[in-house]
Amino acid sequence: MKIGILTSGGDCPGLNAVIRGAVLQGVIEHDTEFVGFKWGWKGVVEEDFVPLVRHDVRGLARQGGTILHSSRTNPFEGEGGGPENIQRMMDRNGIDALMVIGGEGTLTAARRLWDEGGIKVIGVPKTIDNDLAATDYSFGFDTAVEIATEAIDRLRTTADSHGRCMVLEVMGRHVGWIALHSGIAGGAHAILIPEHPQSIEQIAEWVESVRDRGRAPLVVVAEGFMLDGMTEAYSDKGLDAFNRPRLGGIAEQLAPMIEAATGIESRATVLGHIQRGGAPTGYDRVLATRLGIHAVEAAYDGAWGEMVTLRGTEIERVSIAEATGGLNVVPESRYAEAKIFFG
Amino acid sequence: MKIGILTSGGDCPGLNAVIRGAVLQGVIEHDTEFVGFKWGWKGVVEEDFVPLVRHDVRGLARQGGTILHSSRTNPFEGEGGGPENIQRMMDRNGIDALMVIGGEGTLTAARRLWDEGGIKVIGVPKTIDNDLAATDYSFGFDTAVEIATEAIDRLRTTADSHGRCMVLEVMGRHVGWIALHSGIAGGAHAILIPEHPQSIEQIAEWVESVRDRGRAPLVVVAEGFMLDGMTEAYSDKGLDAFNRPRLGGIAEQLAPMIEAATGIESRATVLGHIQRGGAPTGYDRVLATRLGIHAVEAAYDGAWGEMVTLRGTEIERVSIAEATGGLNVVPESRYAEAKIFFG
Amino acid sequence: MKIGILTSGGDCPGLNAVIRGAVLQGVIEHDTEFVGFKWGWKGVVEEDFVPLVRHDVRGLARQGGTILHSSRTNPFEGEGGGPENIQRMMDRNGIDALMVIGGEGTLTAARRLWDEGGIKVIGVPKTIDNDLAATDYSFGFDTAVEIATEAIDRLRTTADSHGRCMVLEVMGRHVGWIALHSGIAGGAHAILIPEHPQSIEQIAEWVESVRDRGRAPLVVVAEGFMLDGMTEAYSDKGLDAFNRPRLGGIAEQLAPMIEAATGIESRATVLGHIQRGGAPTGYDRVLATRLGIHAVEAAYDGAWGEMVTLRGTEIERVSIAEATGGLNVVPESRYAEAKIFFG
Amino acid sequence: MKIGILTSGGDCPGLNAVIRGAVLQGVIEHDTEFVGFKWGWKGVVEEDFVPLVRHDVRGLARQGGTILHSSRTNPFEGEGGGPENIQRMMDRNGIDALMVIGGEGTLTAARRLWDEGGIKVIGVPKTIDNDLAATDYSFGFDTAVEIATEAIDRLRTTADSHGRCMVLEVMGRHVGWIALHSGIAGGAHAILIPEHPQSIEQIAEWVESVRDRGRAPLVVVAEGFMLDGMTEAYSDKGLDAFNRPRLGGIAEQLAPMIEAATGIESRATVLGHIQRGGAPTGYDRVLATRLGIHAVEAAYDGAWGEMVTLRGTEIERVSIAEATGGLNVVPESRYAEAKIFFG
Repeated sequence: MKIGILTSGGDCPGLNAVIRGAVLQGVIEHDTEFVGFKWGWKGVVEEDFVPLVRHDVRGLARQGGTILHSSRTNPFEGEGGGPENIQRMMDRNGIDALMVIGGEGTLTAARRLWDEGGIKVIGVPKTIDNDLAATDYSFGFDTAVEIATEAIDRLRTTADSHGRCMVLEVMGRHVGWIALHSGIAGGAHAILIPEHPQSIEQIAEWVESVRDRGRAPLVVVAEGFMLDGMTEAYSDKGLDAFNRPRLGGIAEQLAPMIEAATGIESRATVLGHIQRGGAPTGYDRVLATRLGIHAVEAAYDGAWGEMVTLRGTEIERVSIAEATGGLNVVPESRYAEAKIFFG
Repeated sequence: MKIGILTSGGDCPGLNAVIRGAVLQGVIEHDTEFVGFKWGWKGVVEEDFVPLVRHDVRGLARQGGTILHSSRTNPFEGEGGGPENIQRMMDRNGIDALMVIGGEGTLTAARRLWDEGGIKVIGVPKTIDNDLAATDYSFGFDTAVEIATEAIDRLRTTADSHGRCMVLEVMGRHVGWIALHSGIAGGAHAILIPEHPQSIEQIAEWVESVRDRGRAPLVVVAEGFMLDGMTEAYSDKGLDAFNRPRLGGIAEQLAPMIEAATGIESRATVLGHIQRGGAPTGYDRVLATRLGIHAVEAAYDGAWGEMVTLRGTEIERVSIAEATGGLNVVPESRYAEAKIFFG
Repeated sequence: MKIGILTSGGDCPGLNAVIRGAVLQGVIEHDTEFVGFKWGWKGVVEEDFVPLVRHDVRGLARQGGTILHSSRTNPFEGEGGGPENIQRMMDRNGIDALMVIGGEGTLTAARRLWDEGGIKVIGVPKTIDNDLAATDYSFGFDTAVEIATEAIDRLRTTADSHGRCMVLEVMGRHVGWIALHSGIAGGAHAILIPEHPQSIEQIAEWVESVRDRGRAPLVVVAEGFMLDGMTEAYSDKGLDAFNRPRLGGIAEQLAPMIEAATGIESRATVLGHIQRGGAPTGYDRVLATRLGIHAVEAAYDGAWGEMVTLRGTEIERVSIAEATGGLNVVPESRYAEAKIFFG
Repeated sequence: MKIGILTSGGDCPGLNAVIRGAVLQGVIEHDTEFVGFKWGWKGVVEEDFVPLVRHDVRGLARQGGTILHSSRTNPFEGEGGGPENIQRMMDRNGIDALMVIGGEGTLTAARRLWDEGGIKVIGVPKTIDNDLAATDYSFGFDTAVEIATEAIDRLRTTADSHGRCMVLEVMGRHVGWIALHSGIAGGAHAILIPEHPQSIEQIAEWVESVRDRGRAPLVVVAEGFMLDGMTEAYSDKGLDAFNRPRLGGIAEQLAPMIEAATGIESRATVLGHIQRGGAPTGYDRVLATRLGIHAVEAAYDGAWGEMVTLRGTEIERVSIAEATGGLNVVPESRYAEAKIFFG
């Protein structure tokens, strides 16, 4: 079998480990041939790919980013796009199947290629925000939490020295998992997530309570968080939470509001791209490697249109159609657990 | 309710996070009083404890070790030992229940106190080796894997520079989880674990195959690994794998054997205590905090004789009696996954 | 002797290590008594201090921030301010001398207290930007460089994955040392520092040249950098480089300009407070500890009005008056060294 | 000019950064051609080298080890050895000069090639132990100190949990710089270095004093340390300190002796090869890069037989002959500074 691999959407620590796991499993267990499409779907629609042999994946588990590069191209658009053109391109090059590593949009597109064009696809879920309901955890998430936790550890000492309130913005457009885990791990005094809007009064109350205990308040906020009432305001205008008009990030909006409400000097820090780069944690390397291995096995089992996922300690398979339906939100009970650290 | 907490056995990153989670959950949700017994069961049988209030757990999530200290005392021995004496001590001090954080031996002892003496105990599993079947993962394990993975990343460059074979010994007396995960994450060329004895010939074959591809071989070995045949030899003498006569650690035994068999200069490194100390990873801080929170809830639900465990993403409860029965060995299928990296 | 210690101005990794070094040296070698003024000069003018004994400095070398807290109070202002009031406060409490840990402003104030009021002061230089000419390096700088270097390592992989230009803003109001060192260490393709204004055309040329070699450009910029021409524009208005009107930081200004000039998608990241918090590097812990030790020796030698500095591998003393005169700018020759990495 | 680069002796974080600095400086400033000899002098005497172009040094600053590999071959031995053969080999390949990166032995050999055969050599000092008197610091040393400091931070929490004495062995055959700096940075309670033999009674006194203050003792020992009296014993036999008969490392000898003398459970940890591998610190990357740049300039200035060194913040040149004479021992005054932390 000859399998084409592609990575699509925002990059994520562990992408290279998936590629390594897949290539080694294929080469050693099945004598599979591999090619790597460059720049995600762009490489597919433009017939731009390179061979991937064992030597290419050497030392790749600990390398951040993706050696295949990534973009946000849509496989249904452009001259080479759509199931028929893609199938022709694959036939032309003797490529039997596609291993598609990407987020919800990418996987949905992959599924359509299978449904509408019979193109043999296997999905590997990639979401640094951990927002796919079909998998317990996705690779990259653990690394992002680790980086955010270290940032909180650092911010705490400078906050304490100056008696300031620090507001740290972490990733999380629609779900607050990175904020929740790093906030619990770092001992934040308020964790603000998209799933649970809060009023500025409530946030100020937490911040003041921390100050009254003689400590420097530390607030972790997911980028998609909105103040109570903002959600309605924006949805009235047909905007969703993340697509609100931005005046800087949410942390830069909150810090002066907190300062105004509490009189405590407040500072914003936006972690940004640092969260997605660099060497993955051991956890993510193992998870990503296993997903790559099992994706190859799924191909040899003919499980087209399915994707590999983590359930407990096992790698399982689910239909992409089912898997991409649900957003993995932070449940009420998990947020309640964290509230004992607030204020 | 007044709960006494104790930590017993070898220390593990995350112990303090369990204590923090429990104390905050109890204080804020239930107005619980806490005391901390010092040096594990020793504090129980010698009536040596200190009050634990909110202030004591400040900043504790990121602190390695245990502020309560630990030892390997048996609660059934000594003047103050045994269920009757312990119950009297608890009554004398108005202590209603014990939260026991420890490994298999500790938890078994806790369960006996409940079964034989009706002493109200809740267990929290602690095993850096991840060898308890009742929980998907235990806190401390992720930190140990991370430290071992970083060590492999470092050893690799020095191995490559000199064309040497490096043999890294990691923890794992009866199970090879730390070796398996750090070996996959770090890209080891052989992973040797207690569950799967190998012959020196097989190891030499892997090492030579790596050398023949122009690379420096890297072997990760769990401390409890034995060469094929050694298991039988020792069990004939009534010794188990870990209690074999030691001439230095297994890495120090293997390195010269590999050098003799392959002619490749080989060096041993023993990670040792570095694996168990220092700040826990974000993953372990979150897991440990949640176990502490849920252990308090278990106490308020009267779930005596039970322990809290991780299943998938949920914290659940199991009877300690059931939980301590099974050793969580690396299954054949997981070891098979790793074999594509060997040689 | 009874010495009062204070930390003033922005915090910096290593402040606690200075305090530890001073207290241990004094207590063990001279039986010195110590008190710690809280919140910098604020504690001095408000007579707010705590005793500092050996136990208080336990484990302090690896702790970021300052246990004494810090602020930007001026000791010549307020009711308790000025040399006479401060001397009276010191007499009232039997305090013989002040050990003042701070930046240029703080040290200048300390020197005036000695010159004008005969108040016995010893200075310890603190500048994370490394902008004091009197010392080869100041503590905190190495930690900031290390954190910025790690950030560059992380940004590189995400930049490469998406073919983007990354612009990282690091500290450095008037001098570019952090940008220079982290840029060289991380392999930046342009390093922009206050001492060397550059035109947007020059920056775009470097960025395009990198892209043309098939790589993702990485630009490190010190917060005080200005585009060529901006310096004159602002100095015409009587503004200095750092006090220019701000529309977000310099990185946020540059990224869209680079994107407009080159057509390469560009993203800004601002490291901010993360650079000043958290555990110091080993280098900074050693340097800070030694400065604390030698500051106590300077007090016992009666070297009032002087400060301790690093020269080569030795800790020496210089008059604060001399020391605070010169800004430690990046010399032409050092910037020239770095230019081989540009473009 | 065509320059051949080689790395010789034990590897050290920063070797690749030297190579990168040299190649970029040469290629960009002088249009220099470079070749890299493989496996140190071995590549020279066996005429085994590869071209080194700009592309080869991409991303090399952060990579541990040496892409040229290293060995301990002597250039005066073997068929292709000695000045005449080497000169012929260089002429044959149009190589004008050698850039030799190595420790005392390597540099001395390089100097002999210049003195005896007129072979144009430039030296770059490499010693992770920091034992060359001609340079303030050598690259690799800072990384080793950082790794050892992190290990101490980790060992401390496990030591405290169990009330044990931890003995950490770090590198340092003839000088104790790594032990001194990491010991001060990590807060060790005794630092044992080759320059200052101590009796077991003195060590036990320090350890007991720590225990009596309620803390867990932490001892850092350089691999070349000897107990008082051992030095004489061995020198009577014509052995130097490091070449004593070894029964395991010094830490493994000391731990049971400390336990016997004090009754405190004691454990040894040997850091070993982990200290020399992996990504260099920012400090070492900058220092190594600058040494590489200046070594090329030295070649263009015809400074044959000289090596580049760090003095204060400047890179200077010294004659290799002078430079390799003196061992950079820890002076009495620096060891005295550290003693306030002992016991």
